[in-house]
Amino acid sequence: MKHIAESTVRRLSLYLRFLEELEGQGRETISSEVLADSGGTTSAQVRKDLSFFGSFGKRGLGYSVTALAKRLREILGLGQPWQVVIIGAGKIGAALAQYRGFRARGFHVVGIFDSDPAKVGRTLDGVTVSDLAQLERELKQLKPQIAVLTVPADVAQELVQRLTKAGVRGILNFAPATLHAPDGVTVRSVNMALELEILSYALAHER
Amino acid sequence: MKHIAESTVRRLSLYLRFLEELEGQGRETISSEVLADSGGTTSAQVRKDLSFFGSFGKRGLGYSVTALAKRLREILGLGQPWQVVIIGAGKIGAALAQYRGFRARGFHVVGIFDSDPAKVGRTLDGVTVSDLAQLERELKQLKPQIAVLTVPADVAQELVQRLTKAGVRGILNFAPATLHAPDGVTVRSVNMALELEILSYALAHER
Repeated sequence: MKHIAESTVRRLSLYLRFLEELEGQGRETISSEVLADSGGTTSAQVRKDLSFFGSFGKRGLGYSVTALAKRLREILGLGQPWQVVIIGAGKIGAALAQYRGFRARGFHVVGIFDSDPAKVGRTLDGVTVSDLAQLERELKQLKPQIAVLTVPADVAQELVQRLTKAGVRGILNFAPATLHAPDGVTVRSVNMALELEILSYALAHER
Repeated sequence: MKHIAESTVRRLSLYLRFLEELEGQGRETISSEVLADSGGTTSAQVRKDLSFFGSFGKRGLGYSVTALAKRLREILGLGQPWQVVIIGAGKIGAALAQYRGFRARGFHVVGIFDSDPAKVGRTLDGVTVSDLAQLERELKQLKPQIAVLTVPADVAQELVQRLTKAGVRGILNFAPATLHAPDGVTVRSVNMALELEILSYALAHER
């Protein structure tokens, strides 16, 4: 794995979003200056970010919108679809299951699991909620690479182990818990209360 | 404002979460080593983080759980409740309106706004969805400090301007857009598709 900083991946993702808008508008080329604006950075940074992955663009002509978008999708691993399961069919889990932004980027929700009998059997955006007790058995069929965890904090770590044993390699965690990822597994955490606390800190310390 | 790194605020928030668990269990003191484990860091880092805000703990006795939790709540601005409005009553907005984790930390949802007539008038967790056209008038009464934005990307920046003019000082943004914050306003963005792309990058570049 090429080790590039997370901040670089973040900018590449912003460039791609902007390039796809331009593709939709039929634009053929773009300068590094305009691309820099889209990612809130400088043209020197854009050139540095992209040169890491090879040579793009012609001096004076800028980058080809289509070719650069295609290359960025490959770099970001968006060239193929990913199979995603959601663990936890509560309010956040249900909202994510129906979130159009995932499918638009090639993340396909193929399974949803919950331990609450009242939720098992319900259908969310065409996917039926399965019993969490059947997780291992169903994952053998579904073979997801990615899991989204929207469960209470006290069961999150246990689920990381179960998912990892079943072959999941990436976990997007919404539980307010610090999770330990086994080797070869990437865990990203989104903690909404924590985001609000960072805001709260900023507001409390305003001059 | 004391400028401390976001990563420090993040650790303080994790320490606080852990201290509150210990308070619930009746524990009176804690060592910097155990606190370090809770935040996934070292005891030297814990002492450094806390010393920034004054002197805590006694050599050999550790920290008082209650006193340290109280001080961390003050530092994080959690000593007082914050009034929050949610802009956008779609699936994500509705899920957030009903998210218990916000209220538990003193973030009170006092208003929800949407421009869709089908959503205006509905009640989410005791709060009625108001017409976005009435935003300025209602914010005069509600006086929120914080807004959560769950609107389409193309209207997000315009709403930042309107909210800021109405006195909002912190914005938690869920729209997939890069927002420019006016002076004195803090914007935090949570981009779920981007989080998945960072996972996707890691999976695609696995050895």
